[in-house]
Amino acid sequence: MTRTERQRELGQQLRADAVRMSARATSGHPTSSMSAADLAAVLLEGHLKYDFDNPRDPRNDRLVFSKGHASPLVYALFRAAGMISEEEFMTYRQFGSRLQGHPVPVLPWVDVATGSLGQGLPIGVGMALAGKRLNRTSMHVWVICGDSEMAEGSMWEAIEHAAFCELDNLTAIIDVNRLGQRGETMYGWDLGAYARRLDAHGWHAIEIDGHDIDAIDSAYREAADTTGRPTAIVARTIKGKGYSAVENQEGWHGKAISTEEAEAAVAELGGVRNVLVVVAKPDAPGHHPQQDATRRDRPRYEVGSEIATRKAYGDALAWIGGQDADVVALDGEVSNSTYAEIFAKAHPDRFFEMYIAEQQMIAAAVGMQALGWKPFASTFAAFISRAYDFVRMAAISRANLRLCGSHAGVSIGEDGPSQMGLEDLASLRAIHGSTVLYPCDGNQTVALVEQMADLDGISYLRTTRAATPVLYDTGEEFPIGGSKVLRSSDGDDVTIVAAGITVPEALAAADELQAGGIRARVIDAYSVKPIDAETLHAAADATGARIVTVEDHWAEGGLGEAVLAAFADREQPIVRLLAVREMPSSGKPAELIAAAGIDAAHIADAARNLVSARELTAITTGG
Amino acid sequence: MTRTERQRELGQQLRADAVRMSARATSGHPTSSMSAADLAAVLLEGHLKYDFDNPRDPRNDRLVFSKGHASPLVYALFRAAGMISEEEFMTYRQFGSRLQGHPVPVLPWVDVATGSLGQGLPIGVGMALAGKRLNRTSMHVWVICGDSEMAEGSMWEAIEHAAFCELDNLTAIIDVNRLGQRGETMYGWDLGAYARRLDAHGWHAIEIDGHDIDAIDSAYREAADTTGRPTAIVARTIKGKGYSAVENQEGWHGKAISTEEAEAAVAELGGVRNVLVVVAKPDAPGHHPQQDATRRDRPRYEVGSEIATRKAYGDALAWIGGQDADVVALDGEVSNSTYAEIFAKAHPDRFFEMYIAEQQMIAAAVGMQALGWKPFASTFAAFISRAYDFVRMAAISRANLRLCGSHAGVSIGEDGPSQMGLEDLASLRAIHGSTVLYPCDGNQTVALVEQMADLDGISYLRTTRAATPVLYDTGEEFPIGGSKVLRSSDGDDVTIVAAGITVPEALAAADELQAGGIRARVIDAYSVKPIDAETLHAAADATGARIVTVEDHWAEGGLGEAVLAAFADREQPIVRLLAVREMPSSGKPAELIAAAGIDAAHIADAARNLVSARELTAITTGG
Repeated sequence: MTRTERQRELGQQLRADAVRMSARATSGHPTSSMSAADLAAVLLEGHLKYDFDNPRDPRNDRLVFSKGHASPLVYALFRAAGMISEEEFMTYRQFGSRLQGHPVPVLPWVDVATGSLGQGLPIGVGMALAGKRLNRTSMHVWVICGDSEMAEGSMWEAIEHAAFCELDNLTAIIDVNRLGQRGETMYGWDLGAYARRLDAHGWHAIEIDGHDIDAIDSAYREAADTTGRPTAIVARTIKGKGYSAVENQEGWHGKAISTEEAEAAVAELGGVRNVLVVVAKPDAPGHHPQQDATRRDRPRYEVGSEIATRKAYGDALAWIGGQDADVVALDGEVSNSTYAEIFAKAHPDRFFEMYIAEQQMIAAAVGMQALGWKPFASTFAAFISRAYDFVRMAAISRANLRLCGSHAGVSIGEDGPSQMGLEDLASLRAIHGSTVLYPCDGNQTVALVEQMADLDGISYLRTTRAATPVLYDTGEEFPIGGSKVLRSSDGDDVTIVAAGITVPEALAAADELQAGGIRARVIDAYSVKPIDAETLHAAADATGARIVTVEDHWAEGGLGEAVLAAFADREQPIVRLLAVREMPSSGKPAELIAAAGIDAAHIADAARNLVSARELTAITTGG
Repeated sequence: MTRTERQRELGQQLRADAVRMSARATSGHPTSSMSAADLAAVLLEGHLKYDFDNPRDPRNDRLVFSKGHASPLVYALFRAAGMISEEEFMTYRQFGSRLQGHPVPVLPWVDVATGSLGQGLPIGVGMALAGKRLNRTSMHVWVICGDSEMAEGSMWEAIEHAAFCELDNLTAIIDVNRLGQRGETMYGWDLGAYARRLDAHGWHAIEIDGHDIDAIDSAYREAADTTGRPTAIVARTIKGKGYSAVENQEGWHGKAISTEEAEAAVAELGGVRNVLVVVAKPDAPGHHPQQDATRRDRPRYEVGSEIATRKAYGDALAWIGGQDADVVALDGEVSNSTYAEIFAKAHPDRFFEMYIAEQQMIAAAVGMQALGWKPFASTFAAFISRAYDFVRMAAISRANLRLCGSHAGVSIGEDGPSQMGLEDLASLRAIHGSTVLYPCDGNQTVALVEQMADLDGISYLRTTRAATPVLYDTGEEFPIGGSKVLRSSDGDDVTIVAAGITVPEALAAADELQAGGIRARVIDAYSVKPIDAETLHAAADATGARIVTVEDHWAEGGLGEAVLAAFADREQPIVRLLAVREMPSSGKPAELIAAAGIDAAHIADAARNLVSARELTAITTGG
């Protein structure tokens, strides 16, 4: 067989396999797989350089299915590469199978989870950036995109960044099969509509017939040979191609061909094949290089001085970057506010300016960690919400990702509510396997950033705009999952649980209470998730089951509810949950903290009320 | 004075005012206001048709500051229009002032909050869509954009939609002042970089000098006269224009000019002026028309039959659309899954296909509600996360917005975790003033959708993919903030709180428990926020302070924590919080619900353990 014939055969095999596996599963997206089968076949058979036995090899090309619903095609490729047995192949979408409905990295050849459209290309940008600027290998990133997902803004963030960074090691293969889930896309088969846009954004765009094997082959060659800019292959394809009964038909998205019909389909496709592809391995030199790392001293702040935790984040990150040459940092055009700029100045080769494109920032971080780097990504806490779906998917990707959100809460002051992160604790706690940290002083921040560098999963650090007093000595340890009891004595009447900006307020409240004869235990719950349940239980037991929680965050899903959840499965204390409950406005930080009812005075009031309410209960019940 | 001279004078006044107010506030963004001052002046003086005394008039043009940080310019415009006194003007950014750091609709002439970049233009698309397709007036939407925010994907979603919908009543005015927050933008003063892109996306792009009054004037005229496509005015401007000490300098973003320097700046700008502009009022006819509304019968489902709540959502929405001609629906290219397609077929003129662009979908809904319409926007629950920042900002906009997320939880089955909304309850609860609803059957869904139509704030309905049994009669009422006690008797041993898909599981668990001699009270907490605290308290008191909560959602921030929070300020029961705690995979719905530990068997186990644990406690403490 000629190369073209082999590629064409492989395309038919991939189609027949997509039909077979989804018919067996009675669900899935065979028609979306069939449109891209030739594009995938030519890539595997003639262009991809990938060592399936060493998927972590940094010299490997990367193949990302941005259109993750084409999972039958992904698994059919792996079968063709000899990586998946016929037996496993037929477990598609079954409980316990690695071959899930959308690709996830439980398979070693899947780097990242896809299935939320518009994420594969921005992740590919991160991989290509890492390949070019960090690993400095000749690896190539191939991303198979759907035409429907071109409506996602995140695709255009990726397109902008890839062009701006001249990522000629990135190729987007756009499978223009014309049909979305419920009908035609905006542009149908108007390939020019895509090509004109991509061209204007600085890409090299090639329009082809996505079922013309030779055209695909030469487009890939052209893509690999193009320098200075990324290439997009805009391929006209037919959804359901190869089985005439479903070709180019509406109503066939995400629908398996029935078991009976599948036989006819496979027959029309030329039957079941077992073509085995010997995939080319990377030949070019390349490695995971030791980046230059200028060592710096660990940042230390004097107890009693003042420093903003956001500034300590920048100091710590720059220091960690000197300790660990795998650490990289990304920021969303606010590095002079988040203080990621300190890292940028110390380690310019490992800093990535992502401009005001938070989705692309998180996606790039996901791509970089897939290649073994340790990304920290920062922006205002409020704007982490812009990339929430990307963080959600990063958890499904089993990504190790470190996020920092600065300017949390009403305490930012004059800029007003649009800039106040007030939902970040809730939204980040609800990310699978996440760690949520909220330091109150500089030395604590440094210790937490240090631990984040080696932490698995998604970790999030919430920092404060204002300078706050340094409470802890430089030698103190702050294990994740721990807390600090800042005030405690025998016979404490009430516990105050605070974190971040509310810790100094809680200490001031404790002073005020003490003056009135009430002894308050103060807990700094810097680890919001996991929360230190043991210390909270002991405090509740020791302080008459009276707890006041106080946070610069909405009342839902934040510190207060984390504390309540720590008492699930157990006798619960009475908890007064102080949090932001009305829409804040502009004002001075102190005015806004007071207006929100989370300052020292309100904490002391709540504690006093709680103590008297409990005493009252004790009297009336004769307890 | 000639028109040009008046416009030039006004520009200088706006600049001087921006300097004065931010100097007084000692914060704010004067330089970002100064770059756009001429663009704003010519608009107000010569083109905007707006009745400041009747800001709700649907014939009014709309002016949106997508670059919301230019709030000094916004307020300076209102002062020039005679709407704000000098006294109020100088309260900028003070606590209690309407003139907040970024514009919010506490001012009647601000339709929507901005300040999270990249949102004003997509909201403007919604307004322009409403103007063209719903109100059918000749109103024009003018959006002043920053150049930095062009990096946000949401801008390109808006650009795509505006072109696709041929919104010639929309003009984007791009203030290309070259400088972002921490340095130069991607394209600096390369106007062509923007114009080429916009042109390729189907816009009419005009490049001008943004300080050339006549060029601005004729560009606006050209924009108003352009038909069949939106216009972008790409204006080269100078950040800080008019005060030579800060013009085109880095390090002046978001920084007030000091009080001392402000005098020099105002002097260089020609002093304080009090030009009063008589803004043209809309002259064209136009109204908020009664749309065609084909009445339909209220959907009713037989008790004992099965229907998916997502299907009931579609039925209900189509019915409500017949009752209330102000109801409009938007969907993110999944209307055949969310069943918004039922509305689309019934009321095609009021349905908006937003393709796979969730940010644009929410933004368009915000824009439409600003013009008095009642939007419902739907996609998969998982993909609501894509627009989380838009929902957050919608709350700051005081928007009345109805969201529906379908395919919630592991119960969707084979598609796997990327398609499972498991963080939506947490993230939507943490939106200010939100209502979070989670129906378990068809008739309940209809009743909740009916109430959502007239609800203030952001409301969210979570629907289920699978068909579930109809439990309630059509006549039953489901007030927001309420719940239903589905099983109850004297001497109940334990309470089970469920919602949505876990309600049938809870009922099956109660049956199983009853067979073993344990009486379980079952509460259907369809209103997750506000939660029915009273019924929960009564149940805790009646069932030995034993509660099992069960939800198809992560353990954080969902139903369980909402229940716990209902007991804050009060003696707490022991709560067993059943929720999804491990990353789910593909599988059959029943397999996944069992694997997550939220099926009937696990609920019954938890209840049994709780009853025996409490009995043990009672024995050991002699209680």
